[in-house]
Amino acid sequence: MKIIIDTDPGQDDALTILLAIISPEIELLGVTTVAGNVSVDQATINALKTMDLAGRTDIPVHAGADRPLLRAPIDATHVHGRTGFEGADLPDPTQKAAPGHAVDFIIRTVMDNPPGSITLCAIGPMTNIALALAREPQLRTRIGQIVTMSGAFAEVGNITPTAEFNVYADPHAAAIVLESGIKITMAPLDITHSLHTSAARLARIEAIGNRIGRVVADWLRFEKAFEAGKYGTDGGPLHDPNTVLWLLRPDLYKGRQVNVRVETGSELTMGLTAVDWWGITKLPGNVFFLKECDTDALYDVITERLARF
Amino acid sequence: MKIIIDTDPGQDDALTILLAIISPEIELLGVTTVAGNVSVDQATINALKTMDLAGRTDIPVHAGADRPLLRAPIDATHVHGRTGFEGADLPDPTQKAAPGHAVDFIIRTVMDNPPGSITLCAIGPMTNIALALAREPQLRTRIGQIVTMSGAFAEVGNITPTAEFNVYADPHAAAIVLESGIKITMAPLDITHSLHTSAARLARIEAIGNRIGRVVADWLRFEKAFEAGKYGTDGGPLHDPNTVLWLLRPDLYKGRQVNVRVETGSELTMGLTAVDWWGITKLPGNVFFLKECDTDALYDVITERLARF
Amino acid sequence: MKIIIDTDPGQDDALTILLAIISPEIELLGVTTVAGNVSVDQATINALKTMDLAGRTDIPVHAGADRPLLRAPIDATHVHGRTGFEGADLPDPTQKAAPGHAVDFIIRTVMDNPPGSITLCAIGPMTNIALALAREPQLRTRIGQIVTMSGAFAEVGNITPTAEFNVYADPHAAAIVLESGIKITMAPLDITHSLHTSAARLARIEAIGNRIGRVVADWLRFEKAFEAGKYGTDGGPLHDPNTVLWLLRPDLYKGRQVNVRVETGSELTMGLTAVDWWGITKLPGNVFFLKECDTDALYDVITERLARF
Amino acid sequence: MKIIIDTDPGQDDALTILLAIISPEIELLGVTTVAGNVSVDQATINALKTMDLAGRTDIPVHAGADRPLLRAPIDATHVHGRTGFEGADLPDPTQKAAPGHAVDFIIRTVMDNPPGSITLCAIGPMTNIALALAREPQLRTRIGQIVTMSGAFAEVGNITPTAEFNVYADPHAAAIVLESGIKITMAPLDITHSLHTSAARLARIEAIGNRIGRVVADWLRFEKAFEAGKYGTDGGPLHDPNTVLWLLRPDLYKGRQVNVRVETGSELTMGLTAVDWWGITKLPGNVFFLKECDTDALYDVITERLARF
Repeated sequence: MKIIIDTDPGQDDALTILLAIISPEIELLGVTTVAGNVSVDQATINALKTMDLAGRTDIPVHAGADRPLLRAPIDATHVHGRTGFEGADLPDPTQKAAPGHAVDFIIRTVMDNPPGSITLCAIGPMTNIALALAREPQLRTRIGQIVTMSGAFAEVGNITPTAEFNVYADPHAAAIVLESGIKITMAPLDITHSLHTSAARLARIEAIGNRIGRVVADWLRFEKAFEAGKYGTDGGPLHDPNTVLWLLRPDLYKGRQVNVRVETGSELTMGLTAVDWWGITKLPGNVFFLKECDTDALYDVITERLARF
Repeated sequence: MKIIIDTDPGQDDALTILLAIISPEIELLGVTTVAGNVSVDQATINALKTMDLAGRTDIPVHAGADRPLLRAPIDATHVHGRTGFEGADLPDPTQKAAPGHAVDFIIRTVMDNPPGSITLCAIGPMTNIALALAREPQLRTRIGQIVTMSGAFAEVGNITPTAEFNVYADPHAAAIVLESGIKITMAPLDITHSLHTSAARLARIEAIGNRIGRVVADWLRFEKAFEAGKYGTDGGPLHDPNTVLWLLRPDLYKGRQVNVRVETGSELTMGLTAVDWWGITKLPGNVFFLKECDTDALYDVITERLARF
Repeated sequence: MKIIIDTDPGQDDALTILLAIISPEIELLGVTTVAGNVSVDQATINALKTMDLAGRTDIPVHAGADRPLLRAPIDATHVHGRTGFEGADLPDPTQKAAPGHAVDFIIRTVMDNPPGSITLCAIGPMTNIALALAREPQLRTRIGQIVTMSGAFAEVGNITPTAEFNVYADPHAAAIVLESGIKITMAPLDITHSLHTSAARLARIEAIGNRIGRVVADWLRFEKAFEAGKYGTDGGPLHDPNTVLWLLRPDLYKGRQVNVRVETGSELTMGLTAVDWWGITKLPGNVFFLKECDTDALYDVITERLARF
Repeated sequence: MKIIIDTDPGQDDALTILLAIISPEIELLGVTTVAGNVSVDQATINALKTMDLAGRTDIPVHAGADRPLLRAPIDATHVHGRTGFEGADLPDPTQKAAPGHAVDFIIRTVMDNPPGSITLCAIGPMTNIALALAREPQLRTRIGQIVTMSGAFAEVGNITPTAEFNVYADPHAAAIVLESGIKITMAPLDITHSLHTSAARLARIEAIGNRIGRVVADWLRFEKAFEAGKYGTDGGPLHDPNTVLWLLRPDLYKGRQVNVRVETGSELTMGLTAVDWWGITKLPGNVFFLKECDTDALYDVITERLARF
């Protein structure tokens, strides 16, 4: 399974990259960065640091869009800290970003591989992917699938009362991607909010004993401080890794093919994903929307995989 | 507790009226009707039939708005049947509607009673109440409270993917009411979808043995046919009675004072209630939003009350 | 011709009332007030002062809505001065407002007169009229016509870049009225901005020599100070009188039956009147939209009429 | 003056290209095509045909975006005919489009020339330019200026009652461009509708006697058939050439630096340009908005230039 991860690291983004790298089922062809949780410059640095941490500086990191298509940029440093890697910051990267824009890397990689063979993991705002689709219409039939952490149904919003961060940060890009006709699987807040980063689970990850286990545990402890405090739970949500985890173990998730549209017209509900879970509109399903998962089993997978480093 | 019920019966609306009539804690001063589940003419007939059924033709029924403020009228005959009372239709009413428009009755009743003494139960689209507020600004400080079945947070929509019927049917009216500064308690889909009209619960109501028990059981059996089929549950939701039930037994509900705004600007999310459950916006709370309830205890209350007839 | 003037005086509103009073073709049945240029309380005082000025305290003034349906109230004291009558303020009124709400007066008057016989002159935000339509659906077929100063096509906006004040102040009310099916004639900014209150025209009004001529000239000199300064013209627009002037002399105006819709969904263009002057949408015409007028002849009419006092 | 023309030919687009080619003040570095009046494939063919007509096959034509960013594609074949060149179609092009996407050509050309030295003439939907800005943020300071035929103030809309075609076809792209901070001059419908392609003017162009004069006269005769019929004028508007004409003779235009925002949130007013001509909002000017021009002098320029072929 050949994948590209489009990302704005962020601690949980980095964990997603690590899980992809260590999993033999997956070949990570490259990482593309986008402004989101942090600026695109910081996101690129963080992606490069993650490659150093994993010892995989051979995997290219391409910097992408520095802002959303239309909206004023926002970030999520209130969750991830100033650097996006607070909790366990890492040494300055030994490498630089690969030459070539993220959008060009995505287009070239998809076009140079057999049709349908490339999976995009979209775990930040979807600006790069929307730009790639606009730039090369053939991607609509050439991309195998997109797996994205974004959106929400019954968990509603985490950046506004009705919107999830990745969609809200660039709702127009998300709308472009969701209307593209490409096969899409969405891991929404309904999933990520069920995967509490509880003290016990983080202790197990730390207990692996390797450096990556310690870094990941420290990262998630930082990230949960904001969200666990907000929700009053033992541990915060676990967001982005659900994309790679679903690729590895789709059997641990339940979902439904439904129609999902993105609100781009109203400030009050900007970036809301209107998920027609009950089929009210009769509109065709454009998203396989995950709604339940086996939380303990997924932490088992995470722990087992990180132990391979 | 002096109340007015503003309603568009509908089987569950009628049950709400019956619970108010039979409960000694409540004095039902009148019923006002509005277009919603059915036309205002049908709603008025149904309210009058309900008074006959309860043997309380002394309680006035005033007909109100025949359409929403701005939106084209919709109805919910797909749920309630053509008459709104399918399942157990009743004889033609013996009385006529009382003279005077619903809006005038609401204004006069509130102004003629001590400030803060009147509770409005809003279990249909809020057109009449919005018109009353526009017509007599003093209502904003004179109405004691409004208890409404409307809106949704995590249960999202039942008429569109994101909107609940009563708000969607007249979102502008709902916006006027929610921004009025009046004390509001909202029983949303989050509550009503947890109160399944299961076969066992309906059997208990029927087993009361009086006429009203049989009628209510038959009504709810009809109403659940649509919604239970849609959701795949044993029984459908129980909507409107949660207003009177909350007045009778607030201890059986849990909620939170939060900010709720109504979407009136976008067709996709029209009528959505943006519930800031997690306090993201820091906007002041304007609604006591019910989110959990003791479902078995509430059916006990219903059964015990109906047995008093 | 029996008319009711619904108004938020405002100097040019008062001139409209005076023109109606002095014109034998018109019987002014009453004046209803609404929040707009000034608060409804101030508007009511100003209407009463106008009746004193005209010596017609027999014509009732009914106070109406104190705020728009949904939007936060705005006023136009930047144009009309604090009292709405700056330039030539008048003695305190000798009368009080008539008992009964403006909305009730409109409903009763229309219902008590033969169908189609009453003309409404709407020269403020249309809140009262929208409330009357909601309260008594028969008005939709009973009102003869509505003549309104509101909206704009090619003159675009005067309160925002795209909206005219009367519509912007209560766009939802305007939408209700425009979609009511009632015969409507609209005198928009396209008309009112062509009727410059030039120094020469005001001098002619003053030269009439009666008190009302002097007051009107002083009023319009004040009102023009803001708008003439803004537009750099000799004189400002003349707005509200175009309703009564059109009733008196429709031959001095040119217009077209077109489709007009009101924007209520976007903050940027809130209250814009989308005038399909060129028939692009093929939607049925709901408004006779005035677009040209004989400006000199209209000032002749004004001067000649005011000279009758 | 080095320029790139981004275009969707269309007869008047082709005239724009011809004027640029023949004018010694201008060096046309390339033409980029975009879906708009016709499909991008047809637009590319038409641009190539125009190069053949002008005998300038050395100027590259790069094909660009095949659809708007978010909206469903529309075209203007109701104005321009099926091919976009009806009236005087031309032989199949002798050349092919140059390799490389329009967006890449724009980026490379701007980045390879001194800062501020490149002018973009945007005479179609602004999809390519928006994509270029998203792909290479440095363009925001490197592009010298953008001159665009788009938008409207007092002439309001030509594709909907409130929107001009080029903006409506991709309002999100237009919003991105207008908010970019780049120096922008806009030739709106207010200009183009004043430049009637009257019979006399077209006769003068034809009377030049060369092939291009005949073709242009035939093109404009076809194009005017739709619009002159609609507006009832002697001749239709002349749209796109106003960009190159303004570059050649800014003295023949009058305009003002004003704030212009694009409606992207409401279906009714989608693509409207909210032009704050009177400075109501106090927002900073982002567009030099042309509002008047010397129409006869401009036709003199056109005729004189075409005679040089």
